[in-house]
Amino acid sequence: MNPKTILLDHGSGGTASQDLISDLFLKYLDNPVLNSLEDAAIIDNHAGKLAISTDSYVVDPIFFPGGDIGCLAVNGTINDLAMRGAKPIALSLALILEEGLLLSDLERVITSIAKTSSNTCVPIVTGDTKVVPKGKGDKIFINTSGIGIVDHGVNVCAKAAKDGDSIILSGSMADHGITIMTQRAGLSLAGQLASDSMALHQMVQQLLAQLPGSIHTMRDPTRGGVATSLSEIAGAAGLSIELEEQAIPIRPPVGAACEILGLDPLYLANEGKCLVITSSEAAQQALRIMRSCPEGREAAIIGHMSKGKAGRVTVKTPVGGTRIVTPLQGEPLPRIC
Amino acid sequence: MNPKTILLDHGSGGTASQDLISDLFLKYLDNPVLNSLEDAAIIDNHAGKLAISTDSYVVDPIFFPGGDIGCLAVNGTINDLAMRGAKPIALSLALILEEGLLLSDLERVITSIAKTSSNTCVPIVTGDTKVVPKGKGDKIFINTSGIGIVDHGVNVCAKAAKDGDSIILSGSMADHGITIMTQRAGLSLAGQLASDSMALHQMVQQLLAQLPGSIHTMRDPTRGGVATSLSEIAGAAGLSIELEEQAIPIRPPVGAACEILGLDPLYLANEGKCLVITSSEAAQQALRIMRSCPEGREAAIIGHMSKGKAGRVTVKTPVGGTRIVTPLQGEPLPRIC
Repeated sequence: MNPKTILLDHGSGGTASQDLISDLFLKYLDNPVLNSLEDAAIIDNHAGKLAISTDSYVVDPIFFPGGDIGCLAVNGTINDLAMRGAKPIALSLALILEEGLLLSDLERVITSIAKTSSNTCVPIVTGDTKVVPKGKGDKIFINTSGIGIVDHGVNVCAKAAKDGDSIILSGSMADHGITIMTQRAGLSLAGQLASDSMALHQMVQQLLAQLPGSIHTMRDPTRGGVATSLSEIAGAAGLSIELEEQAIPIRPPVGAACEILGLDPLYLANEGKCLVITSSEAAQQALRIMRSCPEGREAAIIGHMSKGKAGRVTVKTPVGGTRIVTPLQGEPLPRIC
Repeated sequence: MNPKTILLDHGSGGTASQDLISDLFLKYLDNPVLNSLEDAAIIDNHAGKLAISTDSYVVDPIFFPGGDIGCLAVNGTINDLAMRGAKPIALSLALILEEGLLLSDLERVITSIAKTSSNTCVPIVTGDTKVVPKGKGDKIFINTSGIGIVDHGVNVCAKAAKDGDSIILSGSMADHGITIMTQRAGLSLAGQLASDSMALHQMVQQLLAQLPGSIHTMRDPTRGGVATSLSEIAGAAGLSIELEEQAIPIRPPVGAACEILGLDPLYLANEGKCLVITSSEAAQQALRIMRSCPEGREAAIIGHMSKGKAGRVTVKTPVGGTRIVTPLQGEPLPRIC
């Protein structure tokens, strides 16, 4: 397939997104910092090691159980910085509003942003607002960009994952994705589903402070879920990944909703979880640190890095079988974040 | 008027925008860095003095004489950083694409971004792409956020303008605004109009290097034009501004188009011009430096700061009269940038 127009798949975070990035963006914008394709860029200059990240949020609906587009936009960019080992210090906030948006809805979003910024101790320091005519946008799109400081000596990135490393997931998977899906489908599941939108930087700072050098890779499995994030890491590290299906935490109502809808939770978005890849020696201590934080109370070791075909992710099922996990191809649901 | 929904006026950069900022954004997001409402935020921490700026670009049409949404997005954010005296070091790039956008159009925008980034020596270091369903966006919206380094000792901001300071405009005004307006109206003016989209940071760095301490305030008069930018500066500085209409550079075809359309060029957007406010002693030297740069060849002293009612801007007309320039109220043309 060689499309001539942008498809929803190009926004999926899966292989169509990857093609767009490599065939178009990197082709023209090529530079060593951008090419690393990490959650945040790190630039090293006389001001120190700075991390920079950007994300636009176009989630629909803008309000959902467990959060809204505002808290998502603050937590999401904080998490992208944290995944590179950065301490977030400031965020920008840029709004694209559709003419006719209720001011009361905008106020609800702004108060959510303010509350999240205050709770996470990461201030909004600059902003921009554009308004587009009715029908040329959809209520509100938010871009947050963030900067953070990375301690010298910290170098957390996908290709740093090593053979034998343990893979920890900070909590139950698929909560955000299944919540948005059921909201959009109009399915009522008796209030049992809620987004997991949460900032992870404080837990990450504890891990880095207590286990310097042992945290090799971190990723927050948003669009494309745990499966896509791990495929990318395995590819970048030139290793395989073996997961234990039974070890992966999932809340029963999330598992049930996935079964009803025929969805694989490994591919559903998370907005308050991270994958932490540590040396096997440090794994138990990392687990202990994560479980001592509210963000990681349900953390679990879900698998390990291994020699084998670069980029391959396999899951051992409870009955002893093994299935191969491929990266997400198309767009299961547009506007998940 | 107390609207309950977002109006196009809220995106004008004029008084409706200001109301939204003060009544909603600052009410909840209040912090000293954000409250200064400058083009870029400056945060001072152990990594040095960092400037951060963000802007979303929603211009329609996305291609126009003299530029496109891509070069606008790179130059515009570079200029916002430069206006605070920062040396831009990196940009992020976040795209919101509408399903169905031609890939050839996207490629044209990306090549323009690449060329502008390369010419300005400011790399794109991180990015994000979202796709929204057809009818929920409009071709392409771009957010660029940028960071820059500010030398210790540099403190360029609106309230630093002093009584007696000279006001220099770096070149002819209203080129971008009138070009977009005539394009949208389908008026052909025989190819005489073109956007002035251009990066100004190299000229600004020369000014700051050669006249340390004498450059008090800089602003790029984008949405709302020279009139709105000067009203804001006068308000922040607690001073009046007196302009000489005859001294303000304007290209004849721009002046003619403004007359035909009944528009005041003082309110039209510029995308490659800056207002530089210097001590009167340094003004001639600043003018000389600016005119020696390609970005400022037509620079002119257009007026001065003076004691008087805070925030008042007056223009002396060629026939000896004086008119008061009020800040822009509504939206003359949505999606100008």
